[in-house]
Amino acid sequence: MGQERVLYGYWRSSAAYRVRIALNLKGLPYESRAVHLVNNGGEQHAPDFIALNPQELVPCLIDDGHVLTQSMAIIEYLDETHPVPALLPANPEGRARVRALAQVVGCDVHPLGNLRVLQYLVSEFGLDESAKGVWSRHWIGEGLRALETMLSGHVATGRFCHGDSPTLADACLVPQLYNAIRWKLPLDDYPTIARIYEACQSLEAFRRAAPEVQADAPKES
Amino acid sequence: MGQERVLYGYWRSSAAYRVRIALNLKGLPYESRAVHLVNNGGEQHAPDFIALNPQELVPCLIDDGHVLTQSMAIIEYLDETHPVPALLPANPEGRARVRALAQVVGCDVHPLGNLRVLQYLVSEFGLDESAKGVWSRHWIGEGLRALETMLSGHVATGRFCHGDSPTLADACLVPQLYNAIRWKLPLDDYPTIARIYEACQSLEAFRRAAPEVQADAPKES
Repeated sequence: MGQERVLYGYWRSSAAYRVRIALNLKGLPYESRAVHLVNNGGEQHAPDFIALNPQELVPCLIDDGHVLTQSMAIIEYLDETHPVPALLPANPEGRARVRALAQVVGCDVHPLGNLRVLQYLVSEFGLDESAKGVWSRHWIGEGLRALETMLSGHVATGRFCHGDSPTLADACLVPQLYNAIRWKLPLDDYPTIARIYEACQSLEAFRRAAPEVQADAPKES
Repeated sequence: MGQERVLYGYWRSSAAYRVRIALNLKGLPYESRAVHLVNNGGEQHAPDFIALNPQELVPCLIDDGHVLTQSMAIIEYLDETHPVPALLPANPEGRARVRALAQVVGCDVHPLGNLRVLQYLVSEFGLDESAKGVWSRHWIGEGLRALETMLSGHVATGRFCHGDSPTLADACLVPQLYNAIRWKLPLDDYPTIARIYEACQSLEAFRRAAPEVQADAPKES
């Protein structure tokens, strides 16, 4: 079974982490192939991988011969091809809300803190480690501030971002929180987000997707 | 009719431009309300607007009382509530491809060149006009290079990004090309993209969504 579905990822990639969460929530087995984003000059830049994803980014999911890229598009595909349990609500307004919450992370937070962007800030503008932290915390903070308002002020927020079962929005939120914690951003101002994060971590599907338990994670991290 | 659907936007916002294209392709009338992103300290930071979108970003669409944010989520909502003409293909693989093409722009290109990011690079790291151009051209170039390969090498590419009618992918691509041209990025290396851009511009729905013809565009731009 696993051989028919192959996820190219990296233990610490937020976007790959999202897809792992979705695959686990759906109960879909997959074979994991590590693409090391730093070693060997970045394995995402190797010709074999570029042939799969010209963006030279993880994740890339091979599902039944289809080559799929972009984590949110992959999760929507999984939701359409394996509808139970649903990762999007049934009504258009609810779906729009879940997608918007996911896109706050997927469009306006995560891409700014991506490895290639930090590498470019260092090589082109000479940023040091401390400035990378300032930059990362700024954009994560901007996103979490907006998300906290969107979540705390809405009747549809439940145990999870939308209702009482996890959705695409939670699959995007949790990896972003992992990054926030990594960059030592205090989470005191985001009580709703912190509560939802804990609810997600109580589920095995989320815990099994965590960076540290992936086969390619360094043992000492 | 128009009063029931209100689009808060800005003439030169890529993300608002995408939603205008989708509304026009669907033939949906709307009232346009300008949120000036620079004047008055940035009208997106005014309390009345923050109450609509805590992210303090355009666009925001009010549709039949629903407050919708994030342009790609808005376009999916419009496609679900007004299915004809379809802006996503019918099959999951095609939908995944169109969403991935849209997200290359919406996640990995546009957010990096957004006004708030350029403002932060200037205020925090002291970038000048010239460096802003280097930064913007770099990320737009990275995205267009990947998109050109994804489009030129795929059988599903037609007159438009996916087949012979415009989709969500075209609604995202055209505003990004507008930005590429604005930053004087040479388009010679992207012949498929340039061809699709021309095909889009032949449609009134795209032309009517262009920044320069919006009511809030400066007359001399």
